[in-house]
Amino acid sequence: MGNLKREALSLYLVTDRALSLGRALTEIVRAAVRGGTTMVQLREKACDTRAFVELGRAVHDLLRPLGIPLIVNDRTDIAQVIGAEGVHIGQRDMAYADARRLLGPEAIIGLSVENDEQARECVSFSGLDYIGASPVFATPTKTDTARALGLEGVRRLRQIVGPTMPIVAIGGINSTNIQEIIHAGADGVAVVSALCSAREPEAAARALLHEINRAKS
Amino acid sequence: MGNLKREALSLYLVTDRALSLGRALTEIVRAAVRGGTTMVQLREKACDTRAFVELGRAVHDLLRPLGIPLIVNDRTDIAQVIGAEGVHIGQRDMAYADARRLLGPEAIIGLSVENDEQARECVSFSGLDYIGASPVFATPTKTDTARALGLEGVRRLRQIVGPTMPIVAIGGINSTNIQEIIHAGADGVAVVSALCSAREPEAAARALLHEINRAKS
Repeated sequence: MGNLKREALSLYLVTDRALSLGRALTEIVRAAVRGGTTMVQLREKACDTRAFVELGRAVHDLLRPLGIPLIVNDRTDIAQVIGAEGVHIGQRDMAYADARRLLGPEAIIGLSVENDEQARECVSFSGLDYIGASPVFATPTKTDTARALGLEGVRRLRQIVGPTMPIVAIGGINSTNIQEIIHAGADGVAVVSALCSAREPEAAARALLHEINRAKS
Repeated sequence: MGNLKREALSLYLVTDRALSLGRALTEIVRAAVRGGTTMVQLREKACDTRAFVELGRAVHDLLRPLGIPLIVNDRTDIAQVIGAEGVHIGQRDMAYADARRLLGPEAIIGLSVENDEQARECVSFSGLDYIGASPVFATPTKTDTARALGLEGVRRLRQIVGPTMPIVAIGGINSTNIQEIIHAGADGVAVVSALCSAREPEAAARALLHEINRAKS
């Protein structure tokens, strides 16, 4: 079990350079955290390892002084070399046990869960820090995702994994549906385009966080 | 410096599933090592991490009992998780110092060198196990490579890195040009299509090795 504070999942930015309207990723991240973003996942699927490391170091330099965890999607090697706080793995990435063995007990490791069966399986994953309920709603950001869980699916996952496992919801999330997602059992929301494609990521983060806090209060 | 025996570079298979004529990679590797292949590099550029790990374990299970080193292209995480003997990195992969730090002193680490400047730089890389002179001749296997070094280029690289650094040549190699490549200063040759696309990889390996041994004797 890594050093994840549950409230760090509240507003979780997942990066996507293709959706950042030509702006540098560091610019998006800087604005998003000024607006209250609590955690950042660096996701790069078509990037040289060298460039991925450089980008990761630049983002980590920005987040470390603020105490905001940086999570790397899929690549444990990138996470290790830049000293990131952890990794997020999907069902087609490295197996949880392998990732934990490589990164050690202190790393934050999150796992995408797309259905009830995967949720039941992950209950036995010792030290798993959080699950990503994915996707809650249909989303244009990822083309390889499973069928949308819906609010009912989030409620079912919460029942399966129990009250202590942190859950972050991802997929098609914006300020209009945050309330119901949190009420369905998520600890927070992960967003891609709602921040990366926002004209003003700082203001967008602030607005999303306001909805999250309202739902939790 | 890893545990590389210099003669292990003699006939170095670099895998490419797309060039394997529909045959399983384990089948190619099994036949190639029966024919005398001395080292294997697993190169996968468009593969889920989970599938890469599974493939790597299958190939490693095959090679480990034979004492043939398995090297993973680019991905130190895959190398670590499957317990491979090392990694091969290109100029756009992780920096050598980062890879060495992650994998420790025992791992074999090789680096692609495409020109004189990169050769001069790598002389200062403490513990680097070998360099891959790339590409010696123009090759259809990789589309992102630098200008062909030619035999003259191999001779220059040998002069720059000195007599003790192992060099494996790659790019456009077949039984007709092995003699001159070894005489230009390479310790061995790395091949992709000459084995992966061979109708009989075992016989092809045997024929290549025969040329290599003839050049060295």
